[in-house]
Amino acid sequence: MSVTKFAIPEVIFGNSSLRYLAQCALRLGARRIFLVSDPGLEKAGWVQHVIDILSEDRLECVYYNDVDSNPRDWQVHEGARLYTEERADLIIGLGGGSPIDAAKGIATIASNGGRIHDYEGANRIMRPLPPMIFIPTTAGSGSDISQYCIITDVERQLKMSIISRSLVPNVSIIDPSLLLTKTVELILASAIDALAHAVESYVSRLASPFTETQALYAIRLIMENLETAARTRNPAALEKLSIASTAAGMSFSNAGLGIGHALAHSLGGRYDVLHGLVHPVLLPHVMRYNLPVCREKMDNIAAVVLQSCDTAGTGRALEGIEQLEHMFRSLQVTTRLRDILPDDSQLEQICKMAVPDECALTNPREATWADLMGICKEAW
Amino acid sequence: MSVTKFAIPEVIFGNSSLRYLAQCALRLGARRIFLVSDPGLEKAGWVQHVIDILSEDRLECVYYNDVDSNPRDWQVHEGARLYTEERADLIIGLGGGSPIDAAKGIATIASNGGRIHDYEGANRIMRPLPPMIFIPTTAGSGSDISQYCIITDVERQLKMSIISRSLVPNVSIIDPSLLLTKTVELILASAIDALAHAVESYVSRLASPFTETQALYAIRLIMENLETAARTRNPAALEKLSIASTAAGMSFSNAGLGIGHALAHSLGGRYDVLHGLVHPVLLPHVMRYNLPVCREKMDNIAAVVLQSCDTAGTGRALEGIEQLEHMFRSLQVTTRLRDILPDDSQLEQICKMAVPDECALTNPREATWADLMGICKEAW
Repeated sequence: MSVTKFAIPEVIFGNSSLRYLAQCALRLGARRIFLVSDPGLEKAGWVQHVIDILSEDRLECVYYNDVDSNPRDWQVHEGARLYTEERADLIIGLGGGSPIDAAKGIATIASNGGRIHDYEGANRIMRPLPPMIFIPTTAGSGSDISQYCIITDVERQLKMSIISRSLVPNVSIIDPSLLLTKTVELILASAIDALAHAVESYVSRLASPFTETQALYAIRLIMENLETAARTRNPAALEKLSIASTAAGMSFSNAGLGIGHALAHSLGGRYDVLHGLVHPVLLPHVMRYNLPVCREKMDNIAAVVLQSCDTAGTGRALEGIEQLEHMFRSLQVTTRLRDILPDDSQLEQICKMAVPDECALTNPREATWADLMGICKEAW
Repeated sequence: MSVTKFAIPEVIFGNSSLRYLAQCALRLGARRIFLVSDPGLEKAGWVQHVIDILSEDRLECVYYNDVDSNPRDWQVHEGARLYTEERADLIIGLGGGSPIDAAKGIATIASNGGRIHDYEGANRIMRPLPPMIFIPTTAGSGSDISQYCIITDVERQLKMSIISRSLVPNVSIIDPSLLLTKTVELILASAIDALAHAVESYVSRLASPFTETQALYAIRLIMENLETAARTRNPAALEKLSIASTAAGMSFSNAGLGIGHALAHSLGGRYDVLHGLVHPVLLPHVMRYNLPVCREKMDNIAAVVLQSCDTAGTGRALEGIEQLEHMFRSLQVTTRLRDILPDDSQLEQICKMAVPDECALTNPREATWADLMGICKEAW
């Protein structure tokens, strides 16, 4: 085994853990906080709740909500300008992947200057970032744990991956009760994103014993709890999905991802499609493509998948993939690419854009744009 | 589930990972480093190796080696005085638990003042510590990962537990090739200490899903690799023990320990017995004592233990404990308390001293000094 690194934030986990927010901010020396969230979370009341918690401890709050799903480069630059102007000294990201990634981008520009495009790729951030606390409101993106920040380059119509140890926040406060206000569709899309994080990172070229245990644990929890969580919104099942998303975040942040995420970034940049919708479509085909080079690991995944479904079987890789497809169908999520794209005219371009994506570098099997095109056609 | 916290250092793991040491120190702003180790590691050549790596990057080094196994309060104070006098700006601990705990104590006093006794207990350290990098040379103590620091109070003849988030270092560099210079006895004692960390933290009152996965993973790796590592010093098996010790460290640092460690601290303070020798003696009896209040968890441990030994069986708790005892005997480690103590005259005093130990607080079953006496008698 070669040298491997494992870095995660301090995690505060549990129902009502949000009450520790002010204490964490104070410990990090904050006085004037820059809070990044979005209009959906305002409506659900969570933004005001966070501002109230902070003001109880006399922490001032500057609020920034100009964040789209798939946050744009200019939104990051605008946020960074405001952060500096307001002399804030700590950033809180409250939301799914989008507000948290926007917060990471803002922290990067506020402390390192330039444009967010300057930091595309791995290890390009040189100066330390302001302290960051993230509060995930979905169980999926893992952005509250990870070294990844995904920002849309509007001009090039692609999602840039910015990867740096500096993007791991100081603290991630994970309060599963925030999931109770989410729609079933969002719960499913987020959890299947987390499942893709776990599967892709488990077979990644950079996987280590520290990431592999987290990945398998996440797969098991998602398989055991997703249907119940989606059907009943049972708080205990939602809590398990939060744990799974966190574990998958610990895994992919340190092991990297694969061509499923490379394609998802490329698709999302071109069509602004919701990230979580892409994975039930692509994941099984990506797994089949990777199978020849990581059969033992795919067998391990299958064993976990089949065991959680109490399905008898040989426990071999292909059966596990079929079981995943079966679950996606029974959850009634979209599983065909043609149902999320307007037409197939851009597919070649999308596959060509996915090849240089950072996520493709850690995929266990090399993939040309033509290979990716094959996957997209199978998924069409 | 109540709110739970999970904090670990950045981990750099693998053979030759030591080569990243200077880079890590520079990233943390170091110029003049305070290196804590001991004469044994000097003889093995590791101290000079570390100094060479640092000096290649023009990092100056002040070396402190006045550290006993079971480091003393006065050794910490003397080290802190030297640290301040020498205007060092980062601490490296190189060793088993003793030099690393000494380094933690020195960092505490150098930045917070007073005597190390002032910080006994949980969360008493208020001011930030200097940056710390730890390099474990045994696979067992987990001190390179944990929030714990154990220092002997010479006057009171007891080991103080100092527990604080601040004692988690910035980076732990875990290079399993350092284990190759260790004796079989030390490999066994360290690994069984790690096994006790995993078992005690798995059933702790503060266990969480994040610590439980690490604990079970550590138990499995130790069961699968200990005999081979001890018999052949096979590098792959030693690497697995390093992973296990790290995983067990992640678990106990965040979940706490139990009465096995409370007794071990009390015994170690009174008789200066090597910490790792105590656990094969006490662990099975502690497990039997705790069994009535955590039967399901003990069944889970048994399942892992029996599976790793390819032993058929019902997989119930008691069988798992018996299998552990069987392994200890076949490894020829001491399993009777009478063989590591001069006589039983101090037992009552030892048990009374163990009750207020921080580790006893997280034990799943309450234990009076008379209960602990019962355990010691069974183990006698």
